[in-house]
Amino acid sequence: MTARYADTLRNMRAMTPFIGPETLERRRGRRFRYRLGANESNFGMSPKALAALEAEAERSYWYCDSEHWEVRSRLAALLGVKLENIVVGEGIDGVLGVIVRAFTDPGDVIVTSHGAYPTFNYHVLGYGGRLEFVPYRRDCRNDVEALAERARATGAKLLYLANPDNPTGTFLGHDAIGHLLERMPDGCLLILDEAYAEFAPASDLPPMDAEDPRLIRLRTFSKAHGMAGLRIGYGIAPAEMIDAFNRLRLHFGVGRLSQVAAAASLDDPEFAASVVADVAHGRAEYEALGVELGIPTLPSMTNFVPFEFRDGAESDRMLALLDERDVFVRKPGVTPIDRFVRVTVGTASERAGFAEIFRDSVGVLRG
Amino acid sequence: MTARYADTLRNMRAMTPFIGPETLERRRGRRFRYRLGANESNFGMSPKALAALEAEAERSYWYCDSEHWEVRSRLAALLGVKLENIVVGEGIDGVLGVIVRAFTDPGDVIVTSHGAYPTFNYHVLGYGGRLEFVPYRRDCRNDVEALAERARATGAKLLYLANPDNPTGTFLGHDAIGHLLERMPDGCLLILDEAYAEFAPASDLPPMDAEDPRLIRLRTFSKAHGMAGLRIGYGIAPAEMIDAFNRLRLHFGVGRLSQVAAAASLDDPEFAASVVADVAHGRAEYEALGVELGIPTLPSMTNFVPFEFRDGAESDRMLALLDERDVFVRKPGVTPIDRFVRVTVGTASERAGFAEIFRDSVGVLRG
Repeated sequence: MTARYADTLRNMRAMTPFIGPETLERRRGRRFRYRLGANESNFGMSPKALAALEAEAERSYWYCDSEHWEVRSRLAALLGVKLENIVVGEGIDGVLGVIVRAFTDPGDVIVTSHGAYPTFNYHVLGYGGRLEFVPYRRDCRNDVEALAERARATGAKLLYLANPDNPTGTFLGHDAIGHLLERMPDGCLLILDEAYAEFAPASDLPPMDAEDPRLIRLRTFSKAHGMAGLRIGYGIAPAEMIDAFNRLRLHFGVGRLSQVAAAASLDDPEFAASVVADVAHGRAEYEALGVELGIPTLPSMTNFVPFEFRDGAESDRMLALLDERDVFVRKPGVTPIDRFVRVTVGTASERAGFAEIFRDSVGVLRG
Repeated sequence: MTARYADTLRNMRAMTPFIGPETLERRRGRRFRYRLGANESNFGMSPKALAALEAEAERSYWYCDSEHWEVRSRLAALLGVKLENIVVGEGIDGVLGVIVRAFTDPGDVIVTSHGAYPTFNYHVLGYGGRLEFVPYRRDCRNDVEALAERARATGAKLLYLANPDNPTGTFLGHDAIGHLLERMPDGCLLILDEAYAEFAPASDLPPMDAEDPRLIRLRTFSKAHGMAGLRIGYGIAPAEMIDAFNRLRLHFGVGRLSQVAAAASLDDPEFAASVVADVAHGRAEYEALGVELGIPTLPSMTNFVPFEFRDGAESDRMLALLDERDVFVRKPGVTPIDRFVRVTVGTASERAGFAEIFRDSVGVLRG
């Protein structure tokens, strides 16, 4: 590179966190029939949110409210926290970028499970951080003891944990999270990515204590609220940290329609609840399909189910078979969890279509 | 701050680039009647773009295309550049953030006109850069000689120039930009913010040479295309730089509806052209109003007109008078250009309403 790039960029290797389905479609020269690889919520958004979005659509010539007041005030009331405890950004991805930036000096150590969220790793590398990977346990749960131990051993500044987890779908109750917080070293901050929180039992989530200086929690409208394409997510953290994030975040980065739709969706909790119920039903269908075909599944508290194959080579073959049949799914990138194929819970008709193709593909796989 | 923040953040003073009109409305306890302060395009977006957005709205549960292919392929054809020369982001603000990050090590010098774009300055300070401010010329044009001279004297890495300029509205033809490029020191990169390019004569914009290693150009759908709330803008730069930006940018940060609407707007160039014509008409009305009231105006090649008052104190009084009358406008923050009040060219009825209030306010101002 000839230009005078910043040191961090100069020392960085190229990385793309995810290849999107549209990119794959261009490479394939053919559209997917079933889009079940990005854990999008194919149940769509609340009709009330859609109506609010449509009513505001022609006002798209106005910038957003840079303080996200309508969304933050509703969230504060719902979560029992203060407005000053909430930062809104361009999905969890956007908020994660600000958080990593706020805490990472080049060379700082950051701990995460091996095979967890690539976009988090992308941010860490992009700010010059050093990732320390901890393997998942044999049952594919996050290993809180080992994560805390690694954080202590390395003097980690940040520890990232998705709960419910992506890509495994597994869930740790509030006791386990509390234990992790106690075992983490002083000065280490837990970034708890709760993108799938709505799909877990509310009573088993950690209690909301926004001023806990050890913890940042992340939530999104991309999953249960069905708004991945609108790019709006949020973080809950001590007011002092939110103030720090406000010095870095893109103040007008979220879309106006996203704000309106998110606020309307919060006013219609029955919709997200119905999605959660539909997804639970769909997960049970996927699990039954796994039983039928002799393909184990992981118990999931998310909107996807990981199907377990023998090893990474076999799951690669399954991915190829599904791709030939116009089904988009993904799998984790690292051993040993790369033996799983992760399938989003789609609508009833998508699940039926997928089941037929999956049966056929498993038949081919077994020759 | 007790948390272990990154050094750059720890050394930074708080700064908010802009206070949005919604924030002001909450402070005032009253809505504005005329929103003419953020250079939003109150003419709205192309009806074809709106129809495309509405048709895609229920698909908001899908993430965007992380490669922005529909938008970039159209832009490449329109601009006569390659796909690899275009980066798309969350408005020019988002792209500027990536650019500043890509080039700025703490302490690096970055040159800009004094009173130019606050959000650019916000990014520079946020990445630890050191801003060097060059005064505007007496005629309120950017002083290209002085900018180049300051860049040479300080070994600047980046030089930011908005053309047509914000907040002055003034415009430099391609000869002046070419002269600046020649006078800049080796290794200094010109960030040419052309958010208002559509409002300038196309023949007087610099010729498109995307592989010029001295230059990054920025454009947006927020102004002539009327999509400020959809947050989509782009940069044109050498492919090698775009590749670098792809290692840093938020890959799924732009909304799906924004992509669809932007592509549709590019397919309907007559609409943006009609906005440009309407705005030219509106600027002439504002200028005539200035003549009528004895308030000089700056010649503008944008969608706003700066009205000139005696000094910053008088323009502050005018801002207060307009605020009392429910008109939202803004003024530059620094002397000597803080004597101007910058008024967005609104629709015909907004202009008529503004003219009436402005006449009244000038009357009050003069006692």
